[in-house]
Amino acid sequence: MKVCKFGGTSVASAQQIKKVAAIVRADPSRRIVVVSAPGKRFEDDVKVTDLLINLSHAALRGENVEEQFNKVIDRYDNIANGLGLGCEIQDIIKLDLYNRLASDKENPRIFLDQLQASGEDNLAKLVAAYFNTVGLHAEYVSPKEAGLLVNDLPQRAQALPEAYNRLSTLKDKDTITVFPGFFGYTEEGVLRTFERGGSDITGSILAAAVKAELYENFTDVDCVFVANPRIIDSPVEIDKMTYREMRELSYAGFSVLHDEALMPAFKESVPVCIKNTNNPLAPGTMIVAERESSFRPVTGISADSGFSTLFVSKYLMNREIGFGRKLLQILEDEEISYEHTPSGIDNLSVILRSHQLTPDKEARIVDRVKTELQADEVNFRSNFSMVVIVGEGMRNSTGLAARATTAISRTGANIEMINQGSSEVSLVFGVLKQDETKILKELYKEFFSPVLVV
Amino acid sequence: MKVCKFGGTSVASAQQIKKVAAIVRADPSRRIVVVSAPGKRFEDDVKVTDLLINLSHAALRGENVEEQFNKVIDRYDNIANGLGLGCEIQDIIKLDLYNRLASDKENPRIFLDQLQASGEDNLAKLVAAYFNTVGLHAEYVSPKEAGLLVNDLPQRAQALPEAYNRLSTLKDKDTITVFPGFFGYTEEGVLRTFERGGSDITGSILAAAVKAELYENFTDVDCVFVANPRIIDSPVEIDKMTYREMRELSYAGFSVLHDEALMPAFKESVPVCIKNTNNPLAPGTMIVAERESSFRPVTGISADSGFSTLFVSKYLMNREIGFGRKLLQILEDEEISYEHTPSGIDNLSVILRSHQLTPDKEARIVDRVKTELQADEVNFRSNFSMVVIVGEGMRNSTGLAARATTAISRTGANIEMINQGSSEVSLVFGVLKQDETKILKELYKEFFSPVLVV
Repeated sequence: MKVCKFGGTSVASAQQIKKVAAIVRADPSRRIVVVSAPGKRFEDDVKVTDLLINLSHAALRGENVEEQFNKVIDRYDNIANGLGLGCEIQDIIKLDLYNRLASDKENPRIFLDQLQASGEDNLAKLVAAYFNTVGLHAEYVSPKEAGLLVNDLPQRAQALPEAYNRLSTLKDKDTITVFPGFFGYTEEGVLRTFERGGSDITGSILAAAVKAELYENFTDVDCVFVANPRIIDSPVEIDKMTYREMRELSYAGFSVLHDEALMPAFKESVPVCIKNTNNPLAPGTMIVAERESSFRPVTGISADSGFSTLFVSKYLMNREIGFGRKLLQILEDEEISYEHTPSGIDNLSVILRSHQLTPDKEARIVDRVKTELQADEVNFRSNFSMVVIVGEGMRNSTGLAARATTAISRTGANIEMINQGSSEVSLVFGVLKQDETKILKELYKEFFSPVLVV
Repeated sequence: MKVCKFGGTSVASAQQIKKVAAIVRADPSRRIVVVSAPGKRFEDDVKVTDLLINLSHAALRGENVEEQFNKVIDRYDNIANGLGLGCEIQDIIKLDLYNRLASDKENPRIFLDQLQASGEDNLAKLVAAYFNTVGLHAEYVSPKEAGLLVNDLPQRAQALPEAYNRLSTLKDKDTITVFPGFFGYTEEGVLRTFERGGSDITGSILAAAVKAELYENFTDVDCVFVANPRIIDSPVEIDKMTYREMRELSYAGFSVLHDEALMPAFKESVPVCIKNTNNPLAPGTMIVAERESSFRPVTGISADSGFSTLFVSKYLMNREIGFGRKLLQILEDEEISYEHTPSGIDNLSVILRSHQLTPDKEARIVDRVKTELQADEVNFRSNFSMVVIVGEGMRNSTGLAARATTAISRTGANIEMINQGSSEVSLVFGVLKQDETKILKELYKEFFSPVLVV
């Protein structure tokens, strides 16, 4: 059996949901359908999840929320009407949202999770109702009754190990299961949401739980491209990649799947396919444990900006046991995570995402490193980008670093950092943000230009 | 004034010490002479320091030490006779060594330090005596009376800040000071040695204390070469380099100066000159704070083997604040220092010197990383070499990484690790030990081949 997850744009309107039904009908092995909340129908549209966030904050502030309540309800009414559904489902959704709004606000985070989760939950009810009107024998299943147990972290819950066993019984249902993405319940029965974009995670958990033959993740793109199509014109499509390649690419903005979504599928070796609801016959991109090697050593190139560097130098630093550990402890005290730590003989840099920094935090860190570690020099620099080259074929390709650095040098840009050596499938360059685009273009040309057949 | 330090081979025999006297006589500004213990006179000779180590360990074991005692005394007698000195100095040395051997053995480390330091101490007395016989008005000065105060770390003592002030009065002496390298005294008057090779450190401390115009470090090579002359045939000589370049090169086996020896000179901006006792007219290699740029972006290439890698992977590691810090803490608990930590998205490697590892330590570390950090995969790999390219000119040389990686790829070797981005003057490659020599040769060819003038 297959588990299919449909993203926000795939369920944004009646027209889109008709496509979903057609896709499910086309393959009888598609037995579990996970849905997001309705997303954008057009460029300036507002996602239902954002409407719900606005609504819940207004409610917490004690404001009159009628207008914002109606904005949400209108989206569902619009879809229900477009699908020719009766008033019954509209009343169910309206009452559900009303009840959630009226619920206890003493713990604002629980209240927020309750409201936000209604986006997926009510859409799942609506889709199940619609499926039945078009001859697909379907049933809405609540994460609570199905046993999607999660831990207690508000807005970033994680599934508990016992969830998988309980969810596995979904494979025995003789109806098509329609399941809301994005949330589960604690053992005490409290609703907790995953991180934003977490419907991907729900789909992956269900796929792992029922040991699906395939987890299909339907989005609005035909496939994953080898580079960002907003920067590279008509980039090469990736037909197949490994879980590891997908992970390394997600480092810097390959935002096709939520970070946490690969793990459950990976652990049970369920292949993942990225497909397009609007073009379901396109083969999509398969993400698998192993793949045959291709003639290209590189699978993808991604880039992301917004990095800063903390530089620390101290004479004979390399002989001081504990120096690096103490430095990372200072960052940890400020709740800062880091990406890389290149080092010279007497110096060490920590590369981290700039959004974690504030002038206050920077000053505190510089001060502590100077006084506690007695460093000779400490400073922050910002406006870096990371460019990542990923490919299973890189391990055995002597000269790949040479090709990459030569391509970058052709742009005239300086390489501020090179990190290679832990992952066998990636090579990371730190560059100035201003050079990111030209470097990405040149690397694309180097590794993906059409091969001339003579 | 200049401070001159003469290394082990420069004082290994009477003939060599005559060269030392000639060097000191040739330049009246050479007012402070620091000496090592007598080193090797020929390939299979044994250094006096090693004779002393054997002697002291035998004494601690309570063995009859007559033969080993005589081996040490023979070296001094041999030198004294060759220099035509009377018996007086020989008796002083013999009595001194006898007294040290008879001293308290309750604290073996203090006993060891006492014995080892006699190598330099007695040679300084001998050289001072000899200088006076050839018309150089010289005086042996003891580190104790001169105030070379050190902290309490046995065999790796470090000078205390107040030592500099006290030693500064040496500049007012109207005799040539002959000073033993390698040791100082704690504030309680206990003798403590520096690390092995620490006479370099003594020279640098004195040069800084008297604010010398130059610290001359006399060895048995004409200069520092851009690459190891045992691997590269007649490598290019370095005429001038910066302190930073010297530090980065010392990372992997440019063993011209002790690691700790540059710091005191650097802090007082005393230039250092590496010269050859056997060819004192050769200009040597100057080590300075800043240098004019050369046409070559690379100043030197060094390589060292004996590195291992600890590889750790864990899904979503990069989102776990504290992961790297906890890993380094486990290494610290085993008293292991590390060199580099390249990282992928879900993995991290720690590169460290293999001599710190034992099968027991490796097993404990792997076990702790697996259980405490819940890593998915943990393993050690060994037999790596680090190849380091160093040069102040690297900062502004776009394409240098491209030239280096292209040169390496010409050898067919794989690059296991690249580290660049903290030090602006170095680029480090991790390679398999078996590939080290051919890579070094190819990099030398790339960066130091004669420039063809057409």
